[in-house]
Amino acid sequence: MGTSDRTDVAAELPVAGLDALMRRAFDLACRGPKRGVNPQVGCVLTDATGTVIAEGWHRGAGTPHAEVDALSQLDTVPPGATAIVTLEPCNHTGRTGPCAQALLDAGISRVVYSVSDPGLISGGGAARLAHAGVAVFPNLLEDEGETLLGDWLPAARLGRPVVTAKWAQTLDGRTAAADGSSQWITGPAARADVHRRRSTADAIAVGTGTLIADNPALTARDDTGALLPEQPIPVVFGTRPIPADARLHEHPHSPIVLSGADLAADLANLAQRGIRSLFVEGGPTLISSLVAAGLVDSYLLYLAPALLGGPRTALGDIGVASIGDIRRLEIESVQTLGDDLLVIAHPKGNENSCSPE
Amino acid sequence: MGTSDRTDVAAELPVAGLDALMRRAFDLACRGPKRGVNPQVGCVLTDATGTVIAEGWHRGAGTPHAEVDALSQLDTVPPGATAIVTLEPCNHTGRTGPCAQALLDAGISRVVYSVSDPGLISGGGAARLAHAGVAVFPNLLEDEGETLLGDWLPAARLGRPVVTAKWAQTLDGRTAAADGSSQWITGPAARADVHRRRSTADAIAVGTGTLIADNPALTARDDTGALLPEQPIPVVFGTRPIPADARLHEHPHSPIVLSGADLAADLANLAQRGIRSLFVEGGPTLISSLVAAGLVDSYLLYLAPALLGGPRTALGDIGVASIGDIRRLEIESVQTLGDDLLVIAHPKGNENSCSPE
Ligand SMILES: NC(=O)c1ccc[n+]([C@@H]2O[C@H](COP(=O)([O-])OP(=O)(O)OC[C@H]3O[C@@H](n4cnc5c(N)ncnc54)[C@H](OP(=O)(O)O)[C@@H]3O)[C@@H](O)[C@H]2O)c1
Ligand SMILES: NC(=O)c1ccc[n+]([C@@H]2O[C@H](COP(=O)([O-])OP(=O)(O)OC[C@H]3O[C@@H](n4cnc5c(N)ncnc54)[C@H](OP(=O)(O)O)[C@@H]3O)[C@@H](O)[C@H]2O)c1
Repeated sequence: MGTSDRTDVAAELPVAGLDALMRRAFDLACRGPKRGVNPQVGCVLTDATGTVIAEGWHRGAGTPHAEVDALSQLDTVPPGATAIVTLEPCNHTGRTGPCAQALLDAGISRVVYSVSDPGLISGGGAARLAHAGVAVFPNLLEDEGETLLGDWLPAARLGRPVVTAKWAQTLDGRTAAADGSSQWITGPAARADVHRRRSTADAIAVGTGTLIADNPALTARDDTGALLPEQPIPVVFGTRPIPADARLHEHPHSPIVLSGADLAADLANLAQRGIRSLFVEGGPTLISSLVAAGLVDSYLLYLAPALLGGPRTALGDIGVASIGDIRRLEIESVQTLGDDLLVIAHPKGNENSCSPE
Repeated sequence: MGTSDRTDVAAELPVAGLDALMRRAFDLACRGPKRGVNPQVGCVLTDATGTVIAEGWHRGAGTPHAEVDALSQLDTVPPGATAIVTLEPCNHTGRTGPCAQALLDAGISRVVYSVSDPGLISGGGAARLAHAGVAVFPNLLEDEGETLLGDWLPAARLGRPVVTAKWAQTLDGRTAAADGSSQWITGPAARADVHRRRSTADAIAVGTGTLIADNPALTARDDTGALLPEQPIPVVFGTRPIPADARLHEHPHSPIVLSGADLAADLANLAQRGIRSLFVEGGPTLISSLVAAGLVDSYLLYLAPALLGGPRTALGDIGVASIGDIRRLEIESVQTLGDDLLVIAHPKGNENSCSPE
């Protein structure tokens, strides 16, 4: 598509009007489910004068996409109609057929969208439309559109959940004393912060080592111990069986168990189940493997102002033989939580980038 | 001495006048040497009306104390004279005889001082004076007096230099990659900060491990590599000989070599040589021993935003078997230096306190 197409559209629909229509589409998108394989998408259809003639949104996997939902409100689409969609119309025959084709079949003249589809399979809808002579106006209010999509977008780009590695350590990088005792290294404010962040993740993972040693509940709880409204799905990496008396069995969601033999494949598997964000709480062996494989997008390091020394390091071998292979991080923030520090960091140079190429 | 004594003095010398006289004594103190076994001390003598009749200060070990220096300006001391001294007059017969006795012998009626003498041997001068009927007014402008004394005061209280342990590590507590390579973990801003702080210490220490592995110059340098005006005395702990080609031999000061077999005794030895502050730059083995022995007063942790994993930990065994023995620290500050963080911390609960009991 050329700049001239944009100008055509802009001439007929003033930008101010387009913004308002896109924001309406964002609102519609929010009516759909916030979690799962598919993103929240909204669509507004207008006639040639810019008057809204139909609205639609996506209600979750297996149901029509937003564009198709909106088209289904109309018997016929008037000539010169515009579709305003929060995500680039897909080009992929899934459970529902490509939306780009559906818009073409309906005779839509112009398509305005916010965020480009990152999918290798589903992408290319805009090109298909433009090639067929539809005026395409991409990336309107793109930042707002990306915010709306949340972790769905980076997860779609990565083909796996966004992985946050969290651990609590002393300033010298230890997670336990020599005898393995570790309760509590960090204080109540840090622990409450962990629970709040857990509840925002789609899933929470530990290795069997931690599962067996600590018997964690893997739930997100408030200060009184009550469950927070949103609970992450528990994921266990490893081959050792989950003990029959594990507290994990009381979790509101059934656990997903993965061998961890091929972490990248396991994460792709989680993405296919609709898990966009994974909060990995340890232990050292599992996290070291994820770091070594370049599969960590965010680090949450809770640093207790204390020293332990000894053998129980928060990380083991992460595959750095020489100083040139050091894993540089970019610090996003350093904050105080009670007596503790929380350092939030990301891999530097975005080896495993969440941003568009 | 009772409150009535203070009132007597306060009645004759207004507090505002005393403050000014004490500040004059502080200025005199500053004329003496800033380093060495003895503190900077100044003394002002006034007649009964508050008019200054003599001034003195201490010029370093082996020379008269400030009080004696001031008294030596006078043939006779008029009746009702007051001595205003920055430090409690000593009660100890060293190279110079007790100042408390000298003031008594001179017939001084009142003694006003700022900081109490922390010395187990030299303390007790105020009590001796009060017992002999001299009006004693202690702790005037004490905070300013303590600031003037700098590290001399905590070192005198501890009977050893104030020890700062400094190291640079990754967030996960490593100082080198698996193969031992470590240049550079932190950036130029952090390294410049280290050099500035080195130059404020009386002495700088490493273990023979670091000496042999890194061949450090142990000098404080500016960005161009030029020596800063003040250089710490190099101290080496260990029994292995200093290599003949060690850069240490080019240091402006001759090194002090201590076996490290009894760290507390070695530190007391340094204090007796007039070393008030010791900057320990590693390595891990020496610092771990100092931490284990409770001999570290300040921690300077330069944290590089990076991960290394592997065997090269910044601290080894610090004698913490179980979590109850964790060494809690109090964070004084967290600051950004280029990409790095500098955490300054102190042992919590002041096991090895620098503050008055
Ligand atoms: N301070 C903290 O933040 C924190 C957090 C968590 C745990 N911890 C402590 O850490 C200790 C447990 O440590 P850990 O290292 O044994 O536990 P871990 O990392 O939870 O478990 C290690 C196990 O994970 C499984 N696994 C699956 N895929 C893997 C892969 N690709 N790489 C590595 N492991 C994989 C393996 O189990 P299989 O042998 O079953 O295949 C492996 O033995 C406990 O003492 C716990 O208290 C501390
Ligand atoms: N990142 C950093 O900030 C940093 C700083 C310094 C060093 N390093 C690295 O650390 C490595 C050297 O480590 P290291 O641990 O071997 O060096 P180290 O701590 O400097 O030296 C250890 C030696 O110190 C002597 N020592 C004397 N008294 C001691 C005591 N009470 N406790 C323990 N040791 C005592 C012993 O020497 P004798 O056997 O001779 O008696 C001991 O073998 C080098 O690779 C260096 O690059 C890193």
